[in-house]
Amino acid sequence: MTVLITGVAGFVGSNLARHLLARGDEVVGFDNLRTGSRPNMASVMENRRFAFREVELSDLDGYRSALREFAAGRRISDVWHLAANSDIPAGVGDPKVDLRDTFMTTFNTLALMRELGIGTICFASSSAVYGDHGDRELDEASGPLLPISNYGAMKLASEAAISASAESHLERAFIFRFPNVIGVPATHGVIFDFVHKLKASPDYLAVLGDGTQQKGYLHVDELVDAMLFVRQRSTGKVSCYNIGASDSGVTVRFIAEQVVAHLAPHARIAFGEGNKGWTGDVPKFRYSVAKLSRLGWKPRLSSAEAVRRAIGEIAAQESLA
Amino acid sequence: MTVLITGVAGFVGSNLARHLLARGDEVVGFDNLRTGSRPNMASVMENRRFAFREVELSDLDGYRSALREFAAGRRISDVWHLAANSDIPAGVGDPKVDLRDTFMTTFNTLALMRELGIGTICFASSSAVYGDHGDRELDEASGPLLPISNYGAMKLASEAAISASAESHLERAFIFRFPNVIGVPATHGVIFDFVHKLKASPDYLAVLGDGTQQKGYLHVDELVDAMLFVRQRSTGKVSCYNIGASDSGVTVRFIAEQVVAHLAPHARIAFGEGNKGWTGDVPKFRYSVAKLSRLGWKPRLSSAEAVRRAIGEIAAQESLA
Repeated sequence: MTVLITGVAGFVGSNLARHLLARGDEVVGFDNLRTGSRPNMASVMENRRFAFREVELSDLDGYRSALREFAAGRRISDVWHLAANSDIPAGVGDPKVDLRDTFMTTFNTLALMRELGIGTICFASSSAVYGDHGDRELDEASGPLLPISNYGAMKLASEAAISASAESHLERAFIFRFPNVIGVPATHGVIFDFVHKLKASPDYLAVLGDGTQQKGYLHVDELVDAMLFVRQRSTGKVSCYNIGASDSGVTVRFIAEQVVAHLAPHARIAFGEGNKGWTGDVPKFRYSVAKLSRLGWKPRLSSAEAVRRAIGEIAAQESLA
Repeated sequence: MTVLITGVAGFVGSNLARHLLARGDEVVGFDNLRTGSRPNMASVMENRRFAFREVELSDLDGYRSALREFAAGRRISDVWHLAANSDIPAGVGDPKVDLRDTFMTTFNTLALMRELGIGTICFASSSAVYGDHGDRELDEASGPLLPISNYGAMKLASEAAISASAESHLERAFIFRFPNVIGVPATHGVIFDFVHKLKASPDYLAVLGDGTQQKGYLHVDELVDAMLFVRQRSTGKVSCYNIGASDSGVTVRFIAEQVVAHLAPHARIAFGEGNKGWTGDVPKFRYSVAKLSRLGWKPRLSSAEAVRRAIGEIAAQESLA
């Protein structure tokens, strides 16, 4: 089968491309290379079943031209829509960033799927659609959805537009609510930040917030595996799944200590105040993956194991291993 | 206090303006007059505490100019954001309509509230954010939210953007999920359609669908009363309330029979097939207003009473009484 991946030069997109090519698919990848990059695609660029184009997906006309060119010679069956602004704090500062890169890319993707008769969308949504519900465990049937970042808001807006399109022109829609995903190629996130800080000043690590924020973490290989599992097994017209660790997660303090232990055992860790790192950060998060478990998928790594594996991978990527 | 009403020339907006002026508020009203109209504002236009401007709210620059002009001489405390595309089928045909008129008007409203330091938004959301959940009773904590119309999708997108803004710059946000609201000035809706059809052909009424769609209906006077009650009584930073009838509603067949009995007792009613009138219509709907009841508000009229009252009002408006 031939699939389009938007955001293919990003962290998850490049890993998804690698997995799909490995199973024999033909993959067309689009990315505007604003947060994604060509080096992220190093492992797939030489594959002759992979084609990449630099496309600004928020520009409908340019997106249409690029997609029509590829759709002319192939039958694209699925769009994996992963393109989004991945810099959440940037979107808090300027809501237009998430509007353009997270929502309008979805809106345009749906418009072109309608024009070209592409039936199935697999969408990278986010646990950020839920907002801050304290200790309440959140499953797919939880509401109200009150995101506290523009990133989460525009992910929810995208879910909504996809849901409406499923009623009018899509055949299938898969909405994956992502957890905190870690691994390589890393471009952002707490481990990446800590590694970079220690690279700059090896004897000191400043942590935003008091380190008590606790979240589950999933390795990107497991995330991709879970998505492909749901794509194959779930039967609903609109399938919405939380994907995530099956444990209650680890704290920022644990991650800081692990990064320090791996890279700079003598570094001092300095914590800030409050349990929110930045506006839009959800301090504590209980996230049910029972629906995914019932479908038959469970992660092999615990959050702690995923964190330790990702620390090693990111340190290697940053040539600190 | 001084409030801005967007969509003031629409059905709910014009009624809200009347109620706010009656209690002594100063009201600034904006509307692009695309689905709203000046005649809708007949009862408030002469009030010297009311000021109206024709503004295209999806155009940020024009919206900013108009709002800055009014904000210069007054302290606007609340924005009642009611502007939206009210033609749901039009938005199913072209998603750009709801994007522009329902979502971008919200996005721009939030941007200008941030610029001008206006703290409180009261937003007309919709029961359409829920989607089709069959017989399940839907309350504010129900999910997933899977709207089946672009109208519902862009209302949900608006809720999401408001929620994120509450985290960064708003003081208070009130999200009202509207039921089917009836009364005058009527511009659309099932009663309005039936009255118009009978006006054109008094001996025959064709009904879309088989007439079994059942929904609760609330009179607009009660809707406005409920919103003002919640605005005053609810204490949360983001308050989300279903507003609606407290009964299980009436069928389209009941409405058709009541309109015929009132206007053309000898007309024949012809039903269509299926229990969806059009793409985006939710066939049956169970909608909990328990949260609103717990806060202390209940409608005085049943759905059937609200329908009968609205039929009389709409017939009078259309000079058929």
